[in-house]
Amino acid sequence: MKIGFIGLGIMGRPMAKNLLRAGHALTVCDHHPEHVAELAAAGARAADTPREAAAGNELVITMLPNSPNVREAVCGEGGVLEGAAPGTVLVDMSSIAPGASQEIAAACAEKGVKMLDAPVSGGEPKAVDGTLSIMAGGERAVFDAVRPVLLCMGASAVWCGEIGAGNTTKLANQVIVAANIAAVSEAMMLARRAGVDPARVFDAVKGGLAGSAVLNAKTPMMLERNFAPGFRIDLHIKDLGNALETGHAVGAPLPLTAAVMEMMQTLRADGRGGDDHSALVGFYEKIAGETIA
Amino acid sequence: MKIGFIGLGIMGRPMAKNLLRAGHALTVCDHHPEHVAELAAAGARAADTPREAAAGNELVITMLPNSPNVREAVCGEGGVLEGAAPGTVLVDMSSIAPGASQEIAAACAEKGVKMLDAPVSGGEPKAVDGTLSIMAGGERAVFDAVRPVLLCMGASAVWCGEIGAGNTTKLANQVIVAANIAAVSEAMMLARRAGVDPARVFDAVKGGLAGSAVLNAKTPMMLERNFAPGFRIDLHIKDLGNALETGHAVGAPLPLTAAVMEMMQTLRADGRGGDDHSALVGFYEKIAGETIA
Amino acid sequence: MKIGFIGLGIMGRPMAKNLLRAGHALTVCDHHPEHVAELAAAGARAADTPREAAAGNELVITMLPNSPNVREAVCGEGGVLEGAAPGTVLVDMSSIAPGASQEIAAACAEKGVKMLDAPVSGGEPKAVDGTLSIMAGGERAVFDAVRPVLLCMGASAVWCGEIGAGNTTKLANQVIVAANIAAVSEAMMLARRAGVDPARVFDAVKGGLAGSAVLNAKTPMMLERNFAPGFRIDLHIKDLGNALETGHAVGAPLPLTAAVMEMMQTLRADGRGGDDHSALVGFYEKIAGETIA
Amino acid sequence: MKIGFIGLGIMGRPMAKNLLRAGHALTVCDHHPEHVAELAAAGARAADTPREAAAGNELVITMLPNSPNVREAVCGEGGVLEGAAPGTVLVDMSSIAPGASQEIAAACAEKGVKMLDAPVSGGEPKAVDGTLSIMAGGERAVFDAVRPVLLCMGASAVWCGEIGAGNTTKLANQVIVAANIAAVSEAMMLARRAGVDPARVFDAVKGGLAGSAVLNAKTPMMLERNFAPGFRIDLHIKDLGNALETGHAVGAPLPLTAAVMEMMQTLRADGRGGDDHSALVGFYEKIAGETIA
Repeated sequence: MKIGFIGLGIMGRPMAKNLLRAGHALTVCDHHPEHVAELAAAGARAADTPREAAAGNELVITMLPNSPNVREAVCGEGGVLEGAAPGTVLVDMSSIAPGASQEIAAACAEKGVKMLDAPVSGGEPKAVDGTLSIMAGGERAVFDAVRPVLLCMGASAVWCGEIGAGNTTKLANQVIVAANIAAVSEAMMLARRAGVDPARVFDAVKGGLAGSAVLNAKTPMMLERNFAPGFRIDLHIKDLGNALETGHAVGAPLPLTAAVMEMMQTLRADGRGGDDHSALVGFYEKIAGETIA
Repeated sequence: MKIGFIGLGIMGRPMAKNLLRAGHALTVCDHHPEHVAELAAAGARAADTPREAAAGNELVITMLPNSPNVREAVCGEGGVLEGAAPGTVLVDMSSIAPGASQEIAAACAEKGVKMLDAPVSGGEPKAVDGTLSIMAGGERAVFDAVRPVLLCMGASAVWCGEIGAGNTTKLANQVIVAANIAAVSEAMMLARRAGVDPARVFDAVKGGLAGSAVLNAKTPMMLERNFAPGFRIDLHIKDLGNALETGHAVGAPLPLTAAVMEMMQTLRADGRGGDDHSALVGFYEKIAGETIA
Repeated sequence: MKIGFIGLGIMGRPMAKNLLRAGHALTVCDHHPEHVAELAAAGARAADTPREAAAGNELVITMLPNSPNVREAVCGEGGVLEGAAPGTVLVDMSSIAPGASQEIAAACAEKGVKMLDAPVSGGEPKAVDGTLSIMAGGERAVFDAVRPVLLCMGASAVWCGEIGAGNTTKLANQVIVAANIAAVSEAMMLARRAGVDPARVFDAVKGGLAGSAVLNAKTPMMLERNFAPGFRIDLHIKDLGNALETGHAVGAPLPLTAAVMEMMQTLRADGRGGDDHSALVGFYEKIAGETIA
Repeated sequence: MKIGFIGLGIMGRPMAKNLLRAGHALTVCDHHPEHVAELAAAGARAADTPREAAAGNELVITMLPNSPNVREAVCGEGGVLEGAAPGTVLVDMSSIAPGASQEIAAACAEKGVKMLDAPVSGGEPKAVDGTLSIMAGGERAVFDAVRPVLLCMGASAVWCGEIGAGNTTKLANQVIVAANIAAVSEAMMLARRAGVDPARVFDAVKGGLAGSAVLNAKTPMMLERNFAPGFRIDLHIKDLGNALETGHAVGAPLPLTAAVMEMMQTLRADGRGGDDHSALVGFYEKIAGETIA
């Protein structure tokens, strides 16, 4: 299929490459020329603007940092909506606020462009492997039509409901992940201060009801003090900000998320926003005055 | 082996039966004659007091509600220490405060009795199947000696450190589980209020970093509004109380645990202390004014 | 003095009238013609736009809901900066984010306009009486020059520091007030559930270390269930949102504010955003399942 | 009146001296001989045990650290109930759990002893001046009879309800004070990080709705970094522990208290339990990485 791909960051580059590998014809666009060059070397056509990246393609994919970037790339000057023909499908795979997805989709609809929001989970390793989890919102028929393309980038693609439902699901995902990282940190520090080796706690509890992907992936990082991302605290802060904004808009109070947000802000104030979110254990190390390992 | 078994509650009965099945000779004791009768029918000898249950046995197991019960059964009048010969091993499999384990072990040591604390995780179903997770503290050599007996009741038995380490590990486990149930509830209510079906969220996120044993086991209960325990809120409150007491004693602040504790108190104030801990979603239903499904 | 006054809401109208009473010449502007008419009847000149309200005046005062409104009125089309001559002083008395004050002041500086941020505390009654507390940021000399005008509206006007300091101080004020209302609610509900009349608790503690303006002003409202504002929950939510945004920007985690924010969101989700902020007691009534009086 | 006085700590000594000054005949008792000697030098008779201190007196006052101490002194071997004649009045002025007051009062009733719980607020300075705030629970007629004696020690004595109501009121007081200290700390740190001098914030807000006895008394201590107690964090932790225990018993969730409790635990883990509770600002200094002044 002829696809425009806008946003060649840490996630966007491997996702675009997986589309090329699957035989799709890509026109790519990014603020960083070296990223465009990297994809051009892999077989993509380069475009200067989102408008050019959209022009003449059936499908346009955006993979950008946050709501304002998507708004600008889609609705702004030189944006997708200036280049896309009616009937084009826009799949925004960025993680943004569901309300922003709905607003952008409304702007798309005025130009006859159909939009899905389809954020991903799994981070760079799964983007490289093409095994992301993709959660999508929008018209079911549109989703069914582009699903094969999505599965070039992900191991699963689940339709979650109307436009915005993909991002709502992603926010629910991020709420659970953040609180669970905090919970694991809190539990491991309790063990540590009580004189029990957190590594033994990990072994003893991982097979039971405390077991989780977070426990398996993040405890070893905490114990080895390896906080290379993975998923940066700054990005998790962005997601929790969107979750709180959404919760406030729809009447869902989020007390745990609000508490974990302030813990993450503590890390950011310490200049650790670029660390993996497992560095949240540092909040507990700060208040308990001892490192976990 | 000749074993005294004290405490034939929901957990104790199936655990004792598994020991009988494995060919061990049991002397059992409980406040409820009908529970004693049930085990007698299965081949155990009945004793009137912990002292009698301990007398003449190499190993004594206690499985009781909380610290005061264990103290009474071991150190009180008619207790284990009046009946146990020097050299006897006491394995307390109750979930109690680590500090209480250490105090009781010290009393045991004065009589030449060696104690392990070896609480379990997994609930009634795994007690019945003999697939509990057992986390133990105490002398390593003592643990190694009784490990085969423990494995008649559990799928795994992990040595976590000195006396009290088993209960510290159990508290760490309960801290993670409680916070994760709250996080899943919070995330599902966010989805619900934002118009997305929590069942779809469950499907979309369970394979990723938000995936956990709690998510898998508790989300369906929340969605079906099936709050038959499982593990009762009242018991989880007891565990969080022990976690907070321990955290305060060792200098480990537990902000999430403290927050979730107050959520659970809300449920208990509503008369739902006997519900499964997945009923914690009810806190969110209360503050958001809507049920999750 | 010749003054332009923009924003004739619940607070702006009595403030403008107090300036008229003190003999100042006012040109006023507001989206609601009836509010403009009310002030015209009191002796003010009517203007159609902020630009007109600013033109030819030495001093311009804005009293608007939040940052975007001030930005629009000052920097937007037909805004103050199109009408104000170099040397004009702009005093923004709205309660907005300190960062927004700084941005707007920078835009003013480009046109030779000097800006102070000077939010107020005290609510409608003190606006009517001219006894507001005014907390200001900006150049000290500019503050000293306009201080006499400010004291036509307030009982006190304190210089707090550079531009933005007025709003930072106001946010600090709102953080304390919000947490204290929650604390009083929590304490009164504890007494109520323990069988002690909250009115007696009020009498017994008001003279001691628990005594506060919040306790004196808000406890009677809670006990009489009189939640007519006063200061609306919706506005306090706006202020706490600005406090959290500011705290995140400057590296000051605000865990209590974040917790109280979610309590207030619970009230708003119940349709009580228009109630006085003392209605926060309703959060506790909801989780405890009983009213306080 | 002939009065037995048990407990001559920091508070008890000046309280007892004020009773002597008012002309009452005191028999005193304490674990520390030097404290007994100090009161004997001031005119009191010394007793070796609470039993002796109670014998032959119409009124017995206890002023002890926490529930177990009062239980021991009243109901234990050599305790008040072994010495007090039927008809004696016991006024426990310690700050303990309301449930403990009710249990001890029941034990008293069996011996014909009438008990009031009458904890105080105000700290050592007001104990010295005889200007404590006294909040009492128990039979109204008993309270009215001993009120003149109480007013030798306090500026006010308020009857709050049945037995336990005095301590419930004290807990409500301590809940408000703790949360307000945290709120002031949080607000001052927000100002500090935003570049505004907390001393100016104090001046600007103290006359408005943020004004409180806590703000007036504790902000200067924070700014001068003078954390000499006053009221020690360890004692406030004891009170919050009693508040949480009581809240859990009566079905009043206390989310703010639970959060502030963990902040105070952070200070205690740092070895600062002996500092004044205004040192709670240290929690914010820890997470923000900067001192407030």
